[in-house]
Amino acid sequence: MKDLEEFNDFRGRMNERILNSGNLNLKRFWALDSRAYEPGALDERTLELLGLATSMVLRCDDCVTYHVIRCVQLGVTDDELYEALNVALVVGGSITIPHLRRAFETIDECRRLQVEDPGLKSLL
Amino acid sequence: MKDLEEFNDFRGRMNERILNSGNLNLKRFWALDSRAYEPGALDERTLELLGLATSMVLRCDDCVTYHVIRCVQLGVTDDELYEALNVALVVGGSITIPHLRRAFETIDECRRLQVEDPGLKSLL
Amino acid sequence: MKDLEEFNDFRGRMNERILNSGNLNLKRFWALDSRAYEPGALDERTLELLGLATSMVLRCDDCVTYHVIRCVQLGVTDDELYEALNVALVVGGSITIPHLRRAFETIDECRRLQVEDPGLKSLL
Amino acid sequence: MKDLEEFNDFRGRMNERILNSGNLNLKRFWALDSRAYEPGALDERTLELLGLATSMVLRCDDCVTYHVIRCVQLGVTDDELYEALNVALVVGGSITIPHLRRAFETIDECRRLQVEDPGLKSLL
Amino acid sequence: MKDLEEFNDFRGRMNERILNSGNLNLKRFWALDSRAYEPGALDERTLELLGLATSMVLRCDDCVTYHVIRCVQLGVTDDELYEALNVALVVGGSITIPHLRRAFETIDECRRLQVEDPGLKSLL
Amino acid sequence: MKDLEEFNDFRGRMNERILNSGNLNLKRFWALDSRAYEPGALDERTLELLGLATSMVLRCDDCVTYHVIRCVQLGVTDDELYEALNVALVVGGSITIPHLRRAFETIDECRRLQVEDPGLKSLL
Repeated sequence: MKDLEEFNDFRGRMNERILNSGNLNLKRFWALDSRAYEPGALDERTLELLGLATSMVLRCDDCVTYHVIRCVQLGVTDDELYEALNVALVVGGSITIPHLRRAFETIDECRRLQVEDPGLKSLL
Repeated sequence: MKDLEEFNDFRGRMNERILNSGNLNLKRFWALDSRAYEPGALDERTLELLGLATSMVLRCDDCVTYHVIRCVQLGVTDDELYEALNVALVVGGSITIPHLRRAFETIDECRRLQVEDPGLKSLL
Repeated sequence: MKDLEEFNDFRGRMNERILNSGNLNLKRFWALDSRAYEPGALDERTLELLGLATSMVLRCDDCVTYHVIRCVQLGVTDDELYEALNVALVVGGSITIPHLRRAFETIDECRRLQVEDPGLKSLL
Repeated sequence: MKDLEEFNDFRGRMNERILNSGNLNLKRFWALDSRAYEPGALDERTLELLGLATSMVLRCDDCVTYHVIRCVQLGVTDDELYEALNVALVVGGSITIPHLRRAFETIDECRRLQVEDPGLKSLL
Repeated sequence: MKDLEEFNDFRGRMNERILNSGNLNLKRFWALDSRAYEPGALDERTLELLGLATSMVLRCDDCVTYHVIRCVQLGVTDDELYEALNVALVVGGSITIPHLRRAFETIDECRRLQVEDPGLKSLL
Repeated sequence: MKDLEEFNDFRGRMNERILNSGNLNLKRFWALDSRAYEPGALDERTLELLGLATSMVLRCDDCVTYHVIRCVQLGVTDDELYEALNVALVVGGSITIPHLRRAFETIDECRRLQVEDPGLKSLL
């Protein structure tokens, strides 16, 4: 469980550092990034699954961790996560497998954390 | 409209060529690729949107064309397509913009084809 | 010379199509993309060279074409372009060579166009 | 058959253009690129298959075309090519499939050319 | 030596976790992945070298570690490994250098392990 | 500060290991890599910023760390670094954000080290 907290702390601290850097364009990108996952024609769960699958084929562990947490917070089930990850595996190939292993580890950590904190409110 | 037909013909002809090459593993991959988009815990529309967004961030025009056609066949609306493409744009960056332009062109071609063939049955 | 005009026309037409799609987030990304190349602590030439080199290692022909045109408009010399492209070649490897060939072709087309239109005002 | 000739001509013409650009580092990279495929501990066929598979997972059509031609010139059989391409497909995923289709088309064009020119001496 | 054991343990444990997830398509991909490296027209050593070089250009440390171990188990020599890695370096560029450093570290660890366990039977 | 020293030590030790491997082509690549950043038509600062931005869009943490250190050694300011990183963020998308966080951490570590060692002479 320590790893998700560490990820969460580093992410929060460095986001603040970047947003306070005085570079307005970086700040605007952060805003645009948040808006991309706000519900519109597609609901939040679908948007987060898109974030998860694109992060997986681009093989970014931190991005995968973020979207797994968000999916779990939104009530996405294990089977739904597995199917989204399977699309990413087929599209992106065996090169994604090490990231898939870590994604499963993150899913399992989230499920353990949910015993005490069902909404994963302590994260993100 | 010519372009989508040409894409469709080449795709069909070369798939047949590869599946008849005598290499069984290539054939098995094709089967696994099809299965990834069969409805299970996630419905077909969500799976195809995942295929579309992952193809866009990996910047494969033919893959984007394929999944746009499939999405249109499944009744995905323009606004839903735009939001999925926007997630891909934010995740994958401006380097995806030339592919986004071609994706919009494909969407428009599909909508024109739908006047005569609402289910796009002539394709794929 | 026909190719650069075709690129220019398609780019202009599809940008307009996307900006008029009604999806506000796509529009915001376009604005952020423009702002990234506005002079600040770094001058416009350096920013465009960064655009060129990043486009080359990510192997996007249309993006390379765009930044070559912008560099030429800003007075970047052939030798400066070659050195920026060489950094991209060393960083990105021989897989960038086909894109390098097309970049050199675009540079040569720009130089020919400059005989009649030194500022390449007919483009972008 | 026209396509391979066109590829061959453009490649030759632009290589000459780049090597005569006066940028010595670009020239050195070209030399290093050639040396990588010279037989040493590994034979030329194995080295070219490595060039082919890496080009396929990085999804560079021109690079794939080049290494298919070289493999055919070195007597690599269809079944050997298919197995190397299958490794690339599994490693790189379905996103490589459009490039695989074009690779099979190139293999077939090479085999047709070989009827008149068994060593494909007219190419590269 | 600890690192390779840790890699080996995590890999084994998470593979089991994924194969027992109940998602049949993930399981099928694992089978297809294994089959790609079974000898056919190409021998096992060539197939593993293809796995190594493609993993290197796609810059996946865990995949590189896996294929280095497999190559060493199959009797591939240092000079053969270096030449395959050099093709990957030239194709993939200097961006692969940090992964190359770690690959050399893994080769050296394998050679040290071989003093006690020549076939590296304790791994994979 | 420990991290940069560790990076520096590992980098130095493994470079030496590779350059002494007996493979001449690897050695030649190292030479070509150094030459790409030697001043010519472009000055060293611009070349290093190109190295930084290309490393960021290709998402290689070690390469980013290297070029941040080099930029700081050459007197590049924070605002110049932020603008170069912003181009990379826009070109490469949100998938670069975790690497951006680590780049900011490296910038901050360099600035702290500069209090005692303004030219960062202890590194690289």
